[in-house]
Amino acid sequence: MKILNLPPIINTGFGSQEMNDYIAKYLLPDTEMDTWHLDYGPSSIEGEFDEALAAANVALKCVEAENAGYDAVFVNCFGDPGVRAAREAVNIPVFGGFEPIAYYALGTADKISVVTVLPEVVPMIEGEIARYGLEKRFTKVRHVNIPVLDLEELDILIKAVTEESKKAIREDGAGTIVLGCTAMAGVKEEVEKALNAEGYRVPVIESGQAALVMLETFVRMNLYHSRITYMPPREKVRNLWQTENKDNTAV
Amino acid sequence: MKILNLPPIINTGFGSQEMNDYIAKYLLPDTEMDTWHLDYGPSSIEGEFDEALAAANVALKCVEAENAGYDAVFVNCFGDPGVRAAREAVNIPVFGGFEPIAYYALGTADKISVVTVLPEVVPMIEGEIARYGLEKRFTKVRHVNIPVLDLEELDILIKAVTEESKKAIREDGAGTIVLGCTAMAGVKEEVEKALNAEGYRVPVIESGQAALVMLETFVRMNLYHSRITYMPPREKVRNLWQTENKDNTAV
Amino acid sequence: MKILNLPPIINTGFGSQEMNDYIAKYLLPDTEMDTWHLDYGPSSIEGEFDEALAAANVALKCVEAENAGYDAVFVNCFGDPGVRAAREAVNIPVFGGFEPIAYYALGTADKISVVTVLPEVVPMIEGEIARYGLEKRFTKVRHVNIPVLDLEELDILIKAVTEESKKAIREDGAGTIVLGCTAMAGVKEEVEKALNAEGYRVPVIESGQAALVMLETFVRMNLYHSRITYMPPREKVRNLWQTENKDNTAV
Amino acid sequence: MKILNLPPIINTGFGSQEMNDYIAKYLLPDTEMDTWHLDYGPSSIEGEFDEALAAANVALKCVEAENAGYDAVFVNCFGDPGVRAAREAVNIPVFGGFEPIAYYALGTADKISVVTVLPEVVPMIEGEIARYGLEKRFTKVRHVNIPVLDLEELDILIKAVTEESKKAIREDGAGTIVLGCTAMAGVKEEVEKALNAEGYRVPVIESGQAALVMLETFVRMNLYHSRITYMPPREKVRNLWQTENKDNTAV
Amino acid sequence: MKILNLPPIINTGFGSQEMNDYIAKYLLPDTEMDTWHLDYGPSSIEGEFDEALAAANVALKCVEAENAGYDAVFVNCFGDPGVRAAREAVNIPVFGGFEPIAYYALGTADKISVVTVLPEVVPMIEGEIARYGLEKRFTKVRHVNIPVLDLEELDILIKAVTEESKKAIREDGAGTIVLGCTAMAGVKEEVEKALNAEGYRVPVIESGQAALVMLETFVRMNLYHSRITYMPPREKVRNLWQTENKDNTAV
Amino acid sequence: MKILNLPPIINTGFGSQEMNDYIAKYLLPDTEMDTWHLDYGPSSIEGEFDEALAAANVALKCVEAENAGYDAVFVNCFGDPGVRAAREAVNIPVFGGFEPIAYYALGTADKISVVTVLPEVVPMIEGEIARYGLEKRFTKVRHVNIPVLDLEELDILIKAVTEESKKAIREDGAGTIVLGCTAMAGVKEEVEKALNAEGYRVPVIESGQAALVMLETFVRMNLYHSRITYMPPREKVRNLWQTENKDNTAV
Repeated sequence: MKILNLPPIINTGFGSQEMNDYIAKYLLPDTEMDTWHLDYGPSSIEGEFDEALAAANVALKCVEAENAGYDAVFVNCFGDPGVRAAREAVNIPVFGGFEPIAYYALGTADKISVVTVLPEVVPMIEGEIARYGLEKRFTKVRHVNIPVLDLEELDILIKAVTEESKKAIREDGAGTIVLGCTAMAGVKEEVEKALNAEGYRVPVIESGQAALVMLETFVRMNLYHSRITYMPPREKVRNLWQTENKDNTAV
Repeated sequence: MKILNLPPIINTGFGSQEMNDYIAKYLLPDTEMDTWHLDYGPSSIEGEFDEALAAANVALKCVEAENAGYDAVFVNCFGDPGVRAAREAVNIPVFGGFEPIAYYALGTADKISVVTVLPEVVPMIEGEIARYGLEKRFTKVRHVNIPVLDLEELDILIKAVTEESKKAIREDGAGTIVLGCTAMAGVKEEVEKALNAEGYRVPVIESGQAALVMLETFVRMNLYHSRITYMPPREKVRNLWQTENKDNTAV
Repeated sequence: MKILNLPPIINTGFGSQEMNDYIAKYLLPDTEMDTWHLDYGPSSIEGEFDEALAAANVALKCVEAENAGYDAVFVNCFGDPGVRAAREAVNIPVFGGFEPIAYYALGTADKISVVTVLPEVVPMIEGEIARYGLEKRFTKVRHVNIPVLDLEELDILIKAVTEESKKAIREDGAGTIVLGCTAMAGVKEEVEKALNAEGYRVPVIESGQAALVMLETFVRMNLYHSRITYMPPREKVRNLWQTENKDNTAV
Repeated sequence: MKILNLPPIINTGFGSQEMNDYIAKYLLPDTEMDTWHLDYGPSSIEGEFDEALAAANVALKCVEAENAGYDAVFVNCFGDPGVRAAREAVNIPVFGGFEPIAYYALGTADKISVVTVLPEVVPMIEGEIARYGLEKRFTKVRHVNIPVLDLEELDILIKAVTEESKKAIREDGAGTIVLGCTAMAGVKEEVEKALNAEGYRVPVIESGQAALVMLETFVRMNLYHSRITYMPPREKVRNLWQTENKDNTAV
Repeated sequence: MKILNLPPIINTGFGSQEMNDYIAKYLLPDTEMDTWHLDYGPSSIEGEFDEALAAANVALKCVEAENAGYDAVFVNCFGDPGVRAAREAVNIPVFGGFEPIAYYALGTADKISVVTVLPEVVPMIEGEIARYGLEKRFTKVRHVNIPVLDLEELDILIKAVTEESKKAIREDGAGTIVLGCTAMAGVKEEVEKALNAEGYRVPVIESGQAALVMLETFVRMNLYHSRITYMPPREKVRNLWQTENKDNTAV
Repeated sequence: MKILNLPPIINTGFGSQEMNDYIAKYLLPDTEMDTWHLDYGPSSIEGEFDEALAAANVALKCVEAENAGYDAVFVNCFGDPGVRAAREAVNIPVFGGFEPIAYYALGTADKISVVTVLPEVVPMIEGEIARYGLEKRFTKVRHVNIPVLDLEELDILIKAVTEESKKAIREDGAGTIVLGCTAMAGVKEEVEKALNAEGYRVPVIESGQAALVMLETFVRMNLYHSRITYMPPREKVRNLWQTENKDNTAV
């Protein structure tokens, strides 16, 4: 089985082999994972503007991936830019970061708390919770106020996520913590350990690992997205485009 | 006041001066409306794939419109591709077709029914109802199964919309009918008359008219989108692009 | 166009020309606004007992207003005593203070917070939110604990509303503040400015202004209340009454 | 114990000793029930206009009843005109027809269906279901399209209610039928028998009986309405009134 | 009338005649109450494991009770182990502690707060609130962190419950307090008095008293559980069992 | 990895090696599945009475399984008797049939329909949907009215399930069909094929396969049930029992 890992961002060096290995860690030995980037779009997703810039290229890359023989695509972002669009266009499973982690988390606790990076993605994530009708199982979304591209300082991140997780448990009644950004990969074990040390035996779940295993499962079990919800796009005139500046001008 | 009418589609000749006049009919005399099209994107919105192709250019056109001195932008589509993205990027009000008609309709009846064009946009519209937390006031979305680009045969459309509206009233308890596609402009009066003739004194509301007046009101009253919900995009590397083929290749 | 401003209270001198000008400030030049009072009822609305005393006279005054040629009636109170009753009895639009401000606020933010005057009106307002099915978009109602008839000390009011608004933003996640009493007219600008000064770019909306513009829009666009939701009263014996004491005895 | 039966209507001869005996049938031997009527108001409640005409007098009659030594008041109507107002004003329990029957019905089945008289009261009843947050347990409200003052032809009524009840069971999944008008007293046993005859062992509940026993229980158990939800009215100027025409002019 | 009081626990001496008299205090003079215990099961219910151990014997004891001529059974626990099972198997009313107190509480306030014993029963009680579709009327469940079998130190319990009740009122907006464990019998009056002393006129309701009166009412009014919701068990092979050790081994 | 398959029924010969192979078909080669039965309980689960008879033994068997070295337990029933109880008592993942299929189905379509066996299990399944807060994603539960122990006539079953599935798609808007009884194993492929033949490209999911793969995933990813939701049972006196009649007397 071949799964495409597709961060919905252009390649500016963010994301390491280490991180890819980390999220792929629960895949079966015969599952291969490749990574592609977008040709155009933002260098990180920190709001719905970034999502909009990414969505079209995500959908088209999914078509390309299906044609290239991939069995599934992981749109590697806790938001899900272009995910529903891609499901209309292809016949292979496509997941962003939110849905798989949410569905696994539902099996672990009555109330789930998302701890994410920045205040600006809170409405985006609460929007996903509403869009997928899961408000009754999720508490309010919390954030640590650290931008995505600064997430690599793990010690600070671990401490901040642990603090917000404790508030989620004590004040919001959360039973499971969901890491609300795919770029938070790598802190799950440490946060879980820190919570355990304070007497909270609470699962902490990482969205990349969850998504890749969910996709692998969909392929193994021949599960697919319903064509009642995701009808194929009609043929019509659609105007494509190409990147204007390959030199990554800041906008 | 200058409002930009922005159908989130490329210009393939769809949309007439007549239709523009129709939706602008309730604007105040000193409100001007211009119409722009996308440089790239689909030729109509009939699902979330089309929305994804349109979203980025919609958001960027809104930035351009604000810079050009427009006071507000109507993303002329019952879906709202790029609308939330645009609100992050600009300081002027931006509405798609769904929200304004929904908010006016809430003032007219306890239960509202959307009658739209095609089955493939039903999940998109039910998604907007869920995203905006309005499930308790809306009945299930109904459709007449006519593609957007065939909507210009008004007689057939009027008859089909009237039939679905009667079912919405009788079977779903709807008190108000909302026309669920901005391209359905022009049938409101006839449908309302037909329903009246059968004893149903039920408002039928058209989304373009509703959106333009809502935007005009926002400008007049200095209402704006909250920066808690729509935080401005951080500066970062974002890759732009340009249209690949100006000759409207079918995809 | 002629709109009737109908505070659902007897005239004891509360309400000034200044306040009327304030709420009418966004009306079009050719829209006239007159003000009537009730013949009997309470001198302010601070709970459901007061609403019940007002409701009948509100409904009958709306009938009188329609007969006198008014195009719309604003029942000038954040509760909506007699509003649904009046809609059954007349063919012109009738709004209280809650619905219009709620519907405009829905277009500004994902989560909206009402800040009102007294604890005793909180169940009344939370009841309106429930009755109109908007719980998912509104946070809990907050109050400043100042009686309606003491609202004219603006400095104290502005400070108290600003404090509660900050709590609504920080603790409840509110993105927009709605002033939950029509007698709070006049503080909107100051509260908004104070919130801005603390870095919150959050709309503050005033219900009288919102209601009058909503009514004006309904008239301009020929929008009306559905006769499925508001069926006309059947003819039957109904006993009317007259005021017992014109000298405003305290009850 | 003395309970006041207060139909929120003026006395035009509707309501018989038989009907009063019927609803009082489950009261304890030492519970007395008296009946009062309004001095002004409608001759029946068939919509929110009628409710508004009744509300003030209902609230004031409850004050009068408390002063006269009554232990509880039943506002004898499936709508609840003036009920919440009265609870603010008195210290004795006050119930309309909806709440008690709803709360008993909740103990009998997962899904409950109200079958009422006329289409115009459907929004009023669905409004109560929403106001009291019980949407998840109630199916859509059904009606037999018979005006209140014609309800005395029992055979027709029984047959019509049975038919709608069967639809509620088969199409809406209802497990219990609630008679949605206090003037439907007297058909409960026959409808239940008819449903049994078709194999449906489904409770049919009558609102007058339910309300009177609920009130009796509240008095016996010293239960009362919370002063957090129902704060006492502040002292202020309130204008009372007297009936204009005792000769029951039609309006 | 004969009601069976059935604590879903084995008899280890917990529960006194005093407590039984306390919960029976509002029963009518001609209502008899007997108490049975389980033959096997836990010695107290403090989670869903205990519920599962009790459920079968509860259901079978209800069958036995019906055969022995009881008119109703109170499964004396705020959880409701075996209650729905028993309703399928018998034709008499069966209630646990949660439903009756909830339904009476609904008539007292807009928002209700359960204060219970231990954190481990919070998910069980929040599960009942969800199962019975009452989330909109209940605030989060609070607890005093005292095990059931230590509840007999009333002073500590009263103080702790009063403190949590005040938080429920101030922070969660509760208008009525529900004692969330049938073993909390006996503190209701003192907690209510303590809340009154701080200016909160808020009902405090005890679940045993509520349940017994609800059952008595069901019998008096011939109310019963719908056979649409609770269909009788089909005949089939079912394996019964007997207690293994009568000497109450700890598990 | 070793997973225990635990049908919550006594062994009366129902369930074949073929059916076990069918549900285990997506397990990894190195995952072993054993099957145990209850020592006491019902011979099938067709309502909440049967669930109550099974619950205690299910929970105790899970303890036994954990002690015997199993890594996970599948309580092989679409209801989930004893599942939450078991999670309190053990440290390994335990799932019934409902949750895993629900969580996978959420990833396939916006609206999901359960098609089950008998009317008496409908309230049990709708109860699970409510308990797990998933009402917004599930349509009403449909059934084919065939008892569990007659399910082995596959042709009749396939036809009946296909018919109900088509109604779920057409009338309720379902996008995915969930087989609502673990004993329906074996018809998934045929129903899916029949729906495809009518133009519905709609996933049909089987609960045993879903549950076993979900458990395997939990073990592989070290996911577990939160100890906030499922606190371990306190030590206390609990009375065990033994089967009374090993000869399977009908009850």
